[in-house]
Amino acid sequence: MNKLFFRNDYGEGAHPLVLDALTRTNMAHTCGYGLDDYSLRAADLIREKCGCPHAAVHMMTGGTSANLIALSAFLRPYEAAIAAQTGHICVHETGAIEGSGHKVLIAGDRDGKVLPDGVEAVVRAHTDEHMVHPRVVYISQPTEIGTVYSLSELRALRAVCDAHGLLLYIDGARLGSALTCSEATATLRDIAALADAFYIGGTKNGLLFGEAMVITNPALHKDFRFMIKNRGGMLAKGRLCGVMFLAALEHDDYFAWARHANETADILRAGMARAGIGQLIATTTNQVFPILTRAQAQALGERVEFEHWADVDEAHVAIRLVTSWATTHADAQALAALMEAL
Amino acid sequence: MNKLFFRNDYGEGAHPLVLDALTRTNMAHTCGYGLDDYSLRAADLIREKCGCPHAAVHMMTGGTSANLIALSAFLRPYEAAIAAQTGHICVHETGAIEGSGHKVLIAGDRDGKVLPDGVEAVVRAHTDEHMVHPRVVYISQPTEIGTVYSLSELRALRAVCDAHGLLLYIDGARLGSALTCSEATATLRDIAALADAFYIGGTKNGLLFGEAMVITNPALHKDFRFMIKNRGGMLAKGRLCGVMFLAALEHDDYFAWARHANETADILRAGMARAGIGQLIATTTNQVFPILTRAQAQALGERVEFEHWADVDEAHVAIRLVTSWATTHADAQALAALMEAL
Amino acid sequence: MNKLFFRNDYGEGAHPLVLDALTRTNMAHTCGYGLDDYSLRAADLIREKCGCPHAAVHMMTGGTSANLIALSAFLRPYEAAIAAQTGHICVHETGAIEGSGHKVLIAGDRDGKVLPDGVEAVVRAHTDEHMVHPRVVYISQPTEIGTVYSLSELRALRAVCDAHGLLLYIDGARLGSALTCSEATATLRDIAALADAFYIGGTKNGLLFGEAMVITNPALHKDFRFMIKNRGGMLAKGRLCGVMFLAALEHDDYFAWARHANETADILRAGMARAGIGQLIATTTNQVFPILTRAQAQALGERVEFEHWADVDEAHVAIRLVTSWATTHADAQALAALMEAL
Amino acid sequence: MNKLFFRNDYGEGAHPLVLDALTRTNMAHTCGYGLDDYSLRAADLIREKCGCPHAAVHMMTGGTSANLIALSAFLRPYEAAIAAQTGHICVHETGAIEGSGHKVLIAGDRDGKVLPDGVEAVVRAHTDEHMVHPRVVYISQPTEIGTVYSLSELRALRAVCDAHGLLLYIDGARLGSALTCSEATATLRDIAALADAFYIGGTKNGLLFGEAMVITNPALHKDFRFMIKNRGGMLAKGRLCGVMFLAALEHDDYFAWARHANETADILRAGMARAGIGQLIATTTNQVFPILTRAQAQALGERVEFEHWADVDEAHVAIRLVTSWATTHADAQALAALMEAL
Repeated sequence: MNKLFFRNDYGEGAHPLVLDALTRTNMAHTCGYGLDDYSLRAADLIREKCGCPHAAVHMMTGGTSANLIALSAFLRPYEAAIAAQTGHICVHETGAIEGSGHKVLIAGDRDGKVLPDGVEAVVRAHTDEHMVHPRVVYISQPTEIGTVYSLSELRALRAVCDAHGLLLYIDGARLGSALTCSEATATLRDIAALADAFYIGGTKNGLLFGEAMVITNPALHKDFRFMIKNRGGMLAKGRLCGVMFLAALEHDDYFAWARHANETADILRAGMARAGIGQLIATTTNQVFPILTRAQAQALGERVEFEHWADVDEAHVAIRLVTSWATTHADAQALAALMEAL
Repeated sequence: MNKLFFRNDYGEGAHPLVLDALTRTNMAHTCGYGLDDYSLRAADLIREKCGCPHAAVHMMTGGTSANLIALSAFLRPYEAAIAAQTGHICVHETGAIEGSGHKVLIAGDRDGKVLPDGVEAVVRAHTDEHMVHPRVVYISQPTEIGTVYSLSELRALRAVCDAHGLLLYIDGARLGSALTCSEATATLRDIAALADAFYIGGTKNGLLFGEAMVITNPALHKDFRFMIKNRGGMLAKGRLCGVMFLAALEHDDYFAWARHANETADILRAGMARAGIGQLIATTTNQVFPILTRAQAQALGERVEFEHWADVDEAHVAIRLVTSWATTHADAQALAALMEAL
Repeated sequence: MNKLFFRNDYGEGAHPLVLDALTRTNMAHTCGYGLDDYSLRAADLIREKCGCPHAAVHMMTGGTSANLIALSAFLRPYEAAIAAQTGHICVHETGAIEGSGHKVLIAGDRDGKVLPDGVEAVVRAHTDEHMVHPRVVYISQPTEIGTVYSLSELRALRAVCDAHGLLLYIDGARLGSALTCSEATATLRDIAALADAFYIGGTKNGLLFGEAMVITNPALHKDFRFMIKNRGGMLAKGRLCGVMFLAALEHDDYFAWARHANETADILRAGMARAGIGQLIATTTNQVFPILTRAQAQALGERVEFEHWADVDEAHVAIRLVTSWATTHADAQALAALMEAL
Repeated sequence: MNKLFFRNDYGEGAHPLVLDALTRTNMAHTCGYGLDDYSLRAADLIREKCGCPHAAVHMMTGGTSANLIALSAFLRPYEAAIAAQTGHICVHETGAIEGSGHKVLIAGDRDGKVLPDGVEAVVRAHTDEHMVHPRVVYISQPTEIGTVYSLSELRALRAVCDAHGLLLYIDGARLGSALTCSEATATLRDIAALADAFYIGGTKNGLLFGEAMVITNPALHKDFRFMIKNRGGMLAKGRLCGVMFLAALEHDDYFAWARHANETADILRAGMARAGIGQLIATTTNQVFPILTRAQAQALGERVEFEHWADVDEAHVAIRLVTSWATTHADAQALAALMEAL
């Protein structure tokens, strides 16, 4: 019997609508490197949905590549990014940001969310040319641990950035989930209005791969395509991202898929509540972190694929359950039932 | 009326067999980052076809990314690559190799092919710690301008590498074309036996994207996955490359597609011969470089998409015509006829 | 009236013996780049004093340059250094280590000294290719805040390095002070026996500039001069460091100067004890960190040059007083008296 | 018997006036890192002599360090420098420019001097984001092979830079020699007026070490001290360069020393003319390149220290003779006589 799959949100290929679009356009001839009509139309559509007619939009192959290209385009050699301890660039990119020459400074956070006070403390501590110069605040929406910045939290970060001449960069690997969860207060237009640059994640929401980088600050536009190529991030068949983002966004399916992921996660959360299973961190997005006894975790592991997340204490662990556009209601209900029966 | 498309070999999506394989496997659940069964099976298949049971095989997202990751894995900071003036890493990667810290030294070439004497001259000129230390010979098979190293030429380069402690790295962006052209003498097994590392290009021969890096020298295996991630080259849905290379290689279609590309180019070459149109460089692979008068080039450009390649003299230019798995015989014959009618 | 100078240990030129040696040898003709007889003899002398006949010794221009060259020689691109939060490479090198591509990971420390448990926690947290690979433990002896590792503490770090395949690198910017302070238990030979590489600081102990890098681990010797040149750290008149280190070490004056610095600091510590002035951190080396009220600090600042170090609480600050070979007993006693009179 | 020393211009310590200044100021207390009064006064003096009241002046430790810091401050990651084949950054810096991420493009030259046409050819060849973007023209005055740009040649390079949005950077490792040679037409003020940045070399003209970077283009001033520190080029005792440049420049001795070097080279040139010994390249600066038979070179080598420069043909070699402030008229005359007697 196959296990239920809650390991991650990149465990399948693409949403069928996306695959259909690839198939439909497969034999069309286009020029390469993202200058084709599909890519240009996708960029237009994204500008429109962001309410940013002058934003630059570039298609990136993946999250780490997007982050390292953007930050190395935005920073001079002695400048640094500020991030939460749990930030993807701090931990899970094998030093890609440092590999492009830049230090990542840790700011105080709450529930994975960078705090304005944390940013200010970093700025205050870096006073002269013997230290790096903090220049970009990196956050992800939602965070690595599934929490979501409210609109007012984002505005507070924007204010602290403005006060100190910092750029605000938002990693949107799971942006769809943040925009459609029950606690969402910041819209896509808010994100575009508040960030200097951000990306709309495709890999984890229905595309084969691909992230759409949106650079709203015109001072950061210059020669970005040179940076993409210099860092090995430019696909010959750049049209693929264009075709896929068009398919995902032209009828707003992208948001529907993300909402579906959140709702299947809600089914899990409801089951856990009924079963009295606590969470390591409360989330409304597509990642859920139940705390189980080691015996419960082992028992569940025989029926379900998931990741071990953290050791809580001698007796307890936290696991990570992830839903996606590909998670069925049936599977979510089956898992909820399994948890209730632990 | 649509123009005939001879602009490049990455102007469409994937070969239908590849797209079918992606569709068929689309909803299978796998782990990420290239550790899934498809990727492992593709690696096994490639090892088998290369006759290298101990080679390391890694799936890369594109050519520039593959080259920069391999060279920065193989070189220490003061070490350099040697390449032909026309080499892709010299000209068309926006300084990606230098961006990872390494100088590219130019060796003398003939018809785009690095000469052993050229390598030796570079080695002799670099004598002490005030100069970079040459460490890798970079060639591509076929070269940027469509020429092909014979087996004896490759053996001569291997010998000069052995004599001077150099590694031999082969960029195989269009490797299929070289292996199946009329003048081919080096087989895939020869390539694997002679190179320390090389890649089998997928982007330009039927895949959506993806290149299979084959590292035959065990001294270069260590921690290559760390390097891929550090440089932003690791896809979450790594399985995609696995699925696509399996589809292309399990019944040797990959070679059939490349042969088809060469044969459609032969149709062009035959037409040119009949028309008395000369070539900038004689090729047997999927790139053809006719020399036309400026008026002829302009006339042809109204019916055919191609790239301007070089100014030959006041009156003449060379254009580049590229064929692929997607080029029909009908289109090749139509273009041949157009050239004969110029 | 001139203020008493306790701002740093690089506020004057060189010890007169060093300047004499430079003057005496000034018109001798030598070859360049550190291959002259003075440099070779200095290297021999250092090997002898370290009890390491096979160590490689290289003259470096300064501390940051020495650290960045050594770490970028020792690490592959995805490998990282481990250091204390207060480590010089973490804070005061403007991201030079990251600038050469490497992450610096923070390990738990006590009094600025990296703890074996801290190293192990970092190693345990870095498990796969999505994270950097910890490879070097960076410590300084004494630490940035003037504390000293005991021989048994160094041995414990060596043991944890051996257990996890880590290199131990010791920044000896003020090594003389650590070797000659009242709590010293590790000798120069111990340092050489325990570290894979370390440097003997000249800038802060009597030389105009210059640090002697000692690489005891033969696996790290290869092509280090290429690395020095590649990073801009090779002086044309390399002999200068050779001449200066010879002058400092041939009759062990180097240690006498460091002892003198510690003893003048002892005078300050004694005065503080009599005055009941506490220390931010207890030291026996040439840096002293008295805690003063803000009014006391301001009053003292009118007579003495020193650095503000930290805000302790609303009412108190810690300042930093630094002594050197150039600090007179008279000045130390004068400052002690001023502190007693606060 | 000691050999005559004509190996290089960095074979001794410092000019006695410089050493005196170091000795005289040795015990003065100053702050560190080049913010002391000596350094500030030296910077003022340099601004005055350059006729550039708003230039930024920074003290650098050596030529390679100066070049790599300046170019990595001025260039974005995908931007490249243009230089002559014989340029120091192309050949003799162990890939330091590439090590900081930037390609060095070769422009056509005559006698080691970059030609405006050569620059334009490079610019024309780099047309899009698949190639690096040329941004800085690097020249040295005099060139690596001792030739000197005339004022009109420099103006022509400035014009081509202006036409293409390029910066002009001048490596002045031997600038004194170029400013005081018999064919000099460009003054220090001309250099300052035409370059965006350049450095006045100290190492090869009387200082222990040190080069004064003069950045005349205010758009390049920002945060240069961060760059110096980030690349390991900031000396703790930064005052040393200040003291030495003050001593060299306050009564224009710097120029007298350089003129002396040129004049002793003139003695060699006169001897060669009398003896009918040809030159590989005609120079008026402190490097002379006689062409000798192999037997002559060997005979001379028994009495004189010099560098073998190039093999001219089967029978002939070119050697390099270098003079400096430290070369005596007597030694120059002795060497001239030796050459006449060959």
